[in-house]
Amino acid sequence: MSPYIIFITPLAGVFALFFVVLFARWINKQDPGTPRMQEIASFIRQGANTFLRREFQTIAYFIVALTVILLIVFWPQWQIAFSFVCGAIASMLAIVIGMNVATRANVRTAQAARTLPGKALTIAFRGGATMGLTIVAFNLLGIALLAILFGVSPDNPENVSLLVGFGFGASLSSLFAQMGGGIFTKGADVGADLVGKVEVGIPEDDPRNAAVIADLVGDNVGDCAGRGADLFESGSDNLVATMILGLAFMNPMPEYSFPGYGFAAVLFPLLTRSIGAVGAVLGVLVVRGTGKRNPIASLNLGYFTTGIFSMIAFFALANWVMHDMRLFWCLTLGLGTALLSALIVQYYTGSNVRPVQEIAEAATSGPGVNIITGMAYGFESAVAPKILIALVNVAAYMIMGGGLPGFFGIAAATLGMTELKGIIMAGDAFGPIVDNAGGIAAMSGLSQEVGSSTAVLDTAGNIAKAITKGYSMSCALMTSVVILFTYITEMSRHLGQPLASIVYNSNFDLVDPVNITAIMIGSTIPFLFSAQTLHAVGRTTYKVVEEVRRQFREIPGLLEGKAKADYTQCVDIATRSALKGMIKPAVWGVIFPLAMGFFFGAWSLAAYLIGVKIVGATLAMFMFNSGGAWDNAKKFIEDGHLGGKGSETQRSSVIGDTVGDPLKDAVGPSLHILIKMQNILAITMLPLFLKYGLNLFH
Amino acid sequence: MSPYIIFITPLAGVFALFFVVLFARWINKQDPGTPRMQEIASFIRQGANTFLRREFQTIAYFIVALTVILLIVFWPQWQIAFSFVCGAIASMLAIVIGMNVATRANVRTAQAARTLPGKALTIAFRGGATMGLTIVAFNLLGIALLAILFGVSPDNPENVSLLVGFGFGASLSSLFAQMGGGIFTKGADVGADLVGKVEVGIPEDDPRNAAVIADLVGDNVGDCAGRGADLFESGSDNLVATMILGLAFMNPMPEYSFPGYGFAAVLFPLLTRSIGAVGAVLGVLVVRGTGKRNPIASLNLGYFTTGIFSMIAFFALANWVMHDMRLFWCLTLGLGTALLSALIVQYYTGSNVRPVQEIAEAATSGPGVNIITGMAYGFESAVAPKILIALVNVAAYMIMGGGLPGFFGIAAATLGMTELKGIIMAGDAFGPIVDNAGGIAAMSGLSQEVGSSTAVLDTAGNIAKAITKGYSMSCALMTSVVILFTYITEMSRHLGQPLASIVYNSNFDLVDPVNITAIMIGSTIPFLFSAQTLHAVGRTTYKVVEEVRRQFREIPGLLEGKAKADYTQCVDIATRSALKGMIKPAVWGVIFPLAMGFFFGAWSLAAYLIGVKIVGATLAMFMFNSGGAWDNAKKFIEDGHLGGKGSETQRSSVIGDTVGDPLKDAVGPSLHILIKMQNILAITMLPLFLKYGLNLFH
Repeated sequence: MSPYIIFITPLAGVFALFFVVLFARWINKQDPGTPRMQEIASFIRQGANTFLRREFQTIAYFIVALTVILLIVFWPQWQIAFSFVCGAIASMLAIVIGMNVATRANVRTAQAARTLPGKALTIAFRGGATMGLTIVAFNLLGIALLAILFGVSPDNPENVSLLVGFGFGASLSSLFAQMGGGIFTKGADVGADLVGKVEVGIPEDDPRNAAVIADLVGDNVGDCAGRGADLFESGSDNLVATMILGLAFMNPMPEYSFPGYGFAAVLFPLLTRSIGAVGAVLGVLVVRGTGKRNPIASLNLGYFTTGIFSMIAFFALANWVMHDMRLFWCLTLGLGTALLSALIVQYYTGSNVRPVQEIAEAATSGPGVNIITGMAYGFESAVAPKILIALVNVAAYMIMGGGLPGFFGIAAATLGMTELKGIIMAGDAFGPIVDNAGGIAAMSGLSQEVGSSTAVLDTAGNIAKAITKGYSMSCALMTSVVILFTYITEMSRHLGQPLASIVYNSNFDLVDPVNITAIMIGSTIPFLFSAQTLHAVGRTTYKVVEEVRRQFREIPGLLEGKAKADYTQCVDIATRSALKGMIKPAVWGVIFPLAMGFFFGAWSLAAYLIGVKIVGATLAMFMFNSGGAWDNAKKFIEDGHLGGKGSETQRSSVIGDTVGDPLKDAVGPSLHILIKMQNILAITMLPLFLKYGLNLFH
Repeated sequence: MSPYIIFITPLAGVFALFFVVLFARWINKQDPGTPRMQEIASFIRQGANTFLRREFQTIAYFIVALTVILLIVFWPQWQIAFSFVCGAIASMLAIVIGMNVATRANVRTAQAARTLPGKALTIAFRGGATMGLTIVAFNLLGIALLAILFGVSPDNPENVSLLVGFGFGASLSSLFAQMGGGIFTKGADVGADLVGKVEVGIPEDDPRNAAVIADLVGDNVGDCAGRGADLFESGSDNLVATMILGLAFMNPMPEYSFPGYGFAAVLFPLLTRSIGAVGAVLGVLVVRGTGKRNPIASLNLGYFTTGIFSMIAFFALANWVMHDMRLFWCLTLGLGTALLSALIVQYYTGSNVRPVQEIAEAATSGPGVNIITGMAYGFESAVAPKILIALVNVAAYMIMGGGLPGFFGIAAATLGMTELKGIIMAGDAFGPIVDNAGGIAAMSGLSQEVGSSTAVLDTAGNIAKAITKGYSMSCALMTSVVILFTYITEMSRHLGQPLASIVYNSNFDLVDPVNITAIMIGSTIPFLFSAQTLHAVGRTTYKVVEEVRRQFREIPGLLEGKAKADYTQCVDIATRSALKGMIKPAVWGVIFPLAMGFFFGAWSLAAYLIGVKIVGATLAMFMFNSGGAWDNAKKFIEDGHLGGKGSETQRSSVIGDTVGDPLKDAVGPSLHILIKMQNILAITMLPLFLKYGLNLFH
């Protein structure tokens, strides 16, 4: 393989960006609807942009502070700090672009839904696809260009480890983006519902409710930008970690029966990601609404196209570039697992399947039983996907014949899994666009006109969202395993000891009490983090509720529809509260691994990370799926089953949904990022831990 | 130290048993109250005994089947099967005795509350103490006598490993007892409330409610017998595991700087437990109500007395028997930790502290916010106790100077911790007796008379229960760490390899993908188990609700108080459903570790167990504390705060309590036992895994 192939990889990113521009221009040309619709859309856009701007200001302090620290501690090596800044900025830029297109697509989707339902799907999906493709493109471009800049080549392969800063930067800004957005959206959503639906008794998305714009802004900054940040982060971390891991597999080391792929081992992840960028574009292109076809079938066609293209390209890559067909099987295994784990999530959250129906039925015995049943299924739902991932882990390991090469197999499987990122994110960002379109229609008094066509899209959006969550959790779990391996290989490099002697070092022992202590401490972190995030959501909700109540009280004629609500004030309050709420958990998330690394040493830090990972992943799955199931049980009842709207059963199901909402949209997704951020932080700081760590107990 | 000291240890058990008989006779002599009170008490006693009889019949099938299996696979070694049967029977016998005294103490407490409130405390506490002392006594007697029977002596120390069957038997029957009792009590409790309080609008413990006796029976079979089984099990497992662990520390092995305690290493746990038995009796004796003193102060005096006595005896033991004062510090550390972790639980569940008050305030915004806030504090509450245990682990390890002797230090700390078992269990069993007393008074129309004095006792009972939960979780977590070490030392013995070479074997590696897979699988088990137990509670509740509704519908004059409800039918239905519900989770709980041991090998089984442990412990703490906090938030509101009884806020808080109840009383406590049962099962089956295991991936 020619080492110059590295110069080709950015082209795949440019290819994807080309379609981003194409789609953005195409969407902009669509009819933006009535003046009232445009006015509402501009409120949403302004609110979302204001939120992002302020959020980025807050993040900027942390970025600047950490850049300075990284510069100082790694001086004269400026590259880690530089790639840290690049990662943070690329993450923010990608979600700004994606969200800006989304906030233009929403109103156009609403307008198209009035006349051409088929076109509404295309607009919404392409709006989402812009986010998906931007993420894939920025990921690939950022890392490929930095690799070229840092002179990563067959002569200087170690420079690839400088890219770790990109992953850390992406992780940190994504953690803030997901948490800030998640707290904002759930605070606004629950707050709007509590006063609007419950206290005053006006419908959802009613213009008299001061929090209604905040709620619609939340869809964009939480569901769209937040999830985008999540996927950007797991893409970056995965790519960087597998490239660094590749270092260990460059040269043949016959004593450990290493494959010895040469420089291709380092480039392999970049190449699979280039395939992913092209595949995502192809997948997105085939999704279009005809007005006749079921939108879910359209989405499936997109997933299918990307999948088939990727498999063919994997074959070529494994056969002709890597000369190791086992890698093809590992990549395909990962790809298949991504689809399978999405199916499991659909079983637990789909409204036509037993769990959701049983939860809905439980609501007939009151909210308590509804919640207990949802929790029971939520607990259960974490079991199968995690055992699946665990077995895929060991399967990929065995495909490579076990031992150290098995690490590379697991890395390949995660690369196969992350392959679907672009198309999956397109489906996910499609959801909030459709949500927004419905909200805009309702606030413009056009609900009747668009009613049936947005409802169909809404169902498709919900399924796509459920798929994304199952998918992104699987990716997060697999990625964190790979990052752990990378951590070990980096340890070997920094200490100048053979990999095998590090891996099988007694300090990595399972029954070492210090490691058990570290695992125990790690296992509490997701609980601490969840508690802090939930508290932040609670406080934001409380403030929004107070503000909406105040406006109803103080603005004369508001309830009668004669005066206008002050939407900006509500957005502002939710923004402040969300930004304040995201700081504490993020800071603790950074401090804990640092403290573990310095006081317990680099070895026990790995144990700590395992504790964080396995508890965090299981807890997040519980949160996603129980949250999704409560939501869909509520929808199932509101669709006219078991008493339908206005019944006692529906009220019970709404309570379940109120509990599940912050879990599934604010806490769960942030847990993902926390897991990966701590892992990549550990790799970044590893040289310092090895040099200056106190390592008190070993 | 003379090896004949082993013959003295059963005497401490006999000493405790003597007080059991004394208390039981003393209680029987008290005034059992009016004929109506006696009638109700006899309903409760009959129901509880019927439940236990049927439960034991179900358990008997499993015990017989497993005994046969153990006999076959270990033939000609009959001792493991024999001690298995002894453990199972001792566990059942202890809770039968304890519960029978409790079901006599309840009515006498109610009667005393009418006339001599101070005496009511003494009766209730001594009723509970009977359970606590029976457990301590049977634990010690069973294990000491078996050790003598098996000829454990300086010449045949290895025979101590045959005792593992006792732990396994105790674990298995305790798992069933806790699960069956927990499902029964929560099904009956929630079912009774749903129809009685919510649908029909009659007060708690109203004789017209057919499920009310089932509810009171539940207090006995769930809270009293269930928790008793839990503590019996953790006592047995801990004692057996530390004795077997002692084997490795008998002989001086200078190359690892082993202490080399000789045969005293094996007897040390038995000796500390003997101290515990005497300490428990002393503690129980000082608790008596004067009618003036605050009951909590009385309880605290009991804990304090046991603690001080134990410390003095620990000093003697460490100094003159073990000749190693470091063990004194480890024992004392454990003792102190037990108290500290109980304090943390009190912070999170006490009604005069911030968490509960904030949860109660959240209920003013509706049940959703109430539940979310409770969850947030529940998540948070798992952090501090677990980090505490983790640090105690490493502290005990360091006291012994780290390395392999550190294992013994950790074992000593757990022994110090379990020292309080008797007195703590006395406080816990006191709770259901007081509950029952209140129920009997209410059903006999004497609520007014006893009102204030049972309310004071009730508060004390709640605090004692909260302490027990924090305490028993800490014990479970520490014990499972020790069992893991024992597992490793047993591995060394079975393989005939030096301990250090096993501990630091590369197959125990943290980053081995097979071990990571095993940890991941293990970490899902508590979720699977929780889901199945919660489902069982849900189904039982549903059946109880149906039956109470049926009786109101079909028995003419029931609602008007002219006809009698058929209590037996309700008890019967709840019994059937609970016994059916406990089988599935228990069977899976046994199958998983067996499958891991056979397919993944003995090494990865240890990793699996770590996964089970750390997730299970954290989850259980979340369940206990959020459940306790919701309960106390409800009580706080019902005491007249934030609107008091009948307000919308109170209704919201009741919903939170309905969610928390099955978590804290059925699922959480069963998780404890699951963790320890799987650990002790692993040790029992270890020789088979080593001999016949497939070990597919290593």
